Amino acid sequence: MKNIKIKTKGKYEVVDITSEVEEQVKHLDEGIVIVYTPHATGAIILNENYDPNIGKDIVEALDKIIPEGKWMHDAVDDNGAAHIKAAIIGPSETVIVKEGKLQLGTWQNICFCDFDGPRERTIYVKVIKG
Amino acid sequence: MKNIKIKTKGKYEVVDITSEVEEQVKHLDEGIVIVYTPHATGAIILNENYDPNIGKDIVEALDKIIPEGKWMHDAVDDNGAAHIKAAIIGPSETVIVKEGKLQLGTWQNICFCDFDGPRERTIYVKVIKG
Amino acid sequence: MKNIKIKTKGKYEVVDITSEVEEQVKHLDEGIVIVYTPHATGAIILNENYDPNIGKDIVEALDKIIPEGKWMHDAVDDNGAAHIKAAIIGPSETVIVKEGKLQLGTWQNICFCDFDGPRERTIYVKVIKG
Repeated sequence: MKNIKIKTKGKYEVVDITSEVEEQVKHLDEGIVIVYTPHATGAIILNENYDPNIGKDIVEALDKIIPEGKWMHDAVDDNGAAHIKAAIIGPSETVIVKEGKLQLGTWQNICFCDFDGPRERTIYVKVIKG
Repeated sequence: MKNIKIKTKGKYEVVDITSEVEEQVKHLDEGIVIVYTPHATGAIILNENYDPNIGKDIVEALDKIIPEGKWMHDAVDDNGAAHIKAAIIGPSETVIVKEGKLQLGTWQNICFCDFDGPRERTIYVKVIKG
Repeated sequence: MKNIKIKTKGKYEVVDITSEVEEQVKHLDEGIVIVYTPHATGAIILNENYDPNIGKDIVEALDKIIPEGKWMHDAVDDNGAAHIKAAIIGPSETVIVKEGKLQLGTWQNICFCDFDGPRERTIYVKVIKG
């Protein structure tokens, strides 16, 4: 499998990677795909990106719930809130694959969320047949 | 595998689907099952349903954390909060299966959460042997 | 696979189990590992443990978002907040394995979170080859 590489531009950003994942499952008849990011200040979500304001709503909601600048880890490198958000959302999602197609709903896209950009970010794509 | 179909009755609802999932793994000797909902305003959780108030506590807590009516997406179809909750909880859970039995804890049930009901909802059940 | 057994000492605790999981995948050439806890008041997270204050920040943030003592389930056994936190974080994480190594990022550790300790806790480790 090939890793997906992206560059985020803002501190908070939601990047749609659905088509990059789909490209990598097109020869898989039956199975699942694990979309996993090895970063501790980013996460993978599944939700709508047809209205890109949903991504903005999600990062704004998380920023309200977990405000910046209030955490012990901020003394180390000032991104405690990003670590907490990443831990809550989680680094991976699993999607079912059938006849080379991701079995996403109509309003589901696979997105990487950056909580501590801008950075170069990597996403692993792992297919399991079955 | 057969999809699970449910009809929710309220705006917020937690529906226990443990027995429907168990029915579909009864011939699986060893493996995992992915319980996945293709909706962007619903989610899958694992928690106690012996006291059904726990489900009510969960949806009430999420409603306090992510209040209705404050989101950009509300201008489109007035369910921004439901999308944010679904993204945070996530659309799937993975459970280990052994000798036809879900390896759930004593106080774990598999539940679908609706954040934007009442609606007809679907849950995919995907088994991976291994 | 062998279960991991731990004893937590405080009400809230984050216990790093990365090395115990790594021990169990060292003979797996290619696949995934599901790290799953069968408890309804604990959860599995992936995040940094090099600075152990991150774990403390995570449990403190969750305690602020979901305060103790305000839930219907408290009438039964006074741990409603722990159930809600466990449902939001979720009981499992999936990690990719290659040549006997967990494909974690530099700042990712696998941790069990107790929201209702001190207790004896179990974590299942399930490998899927592929």
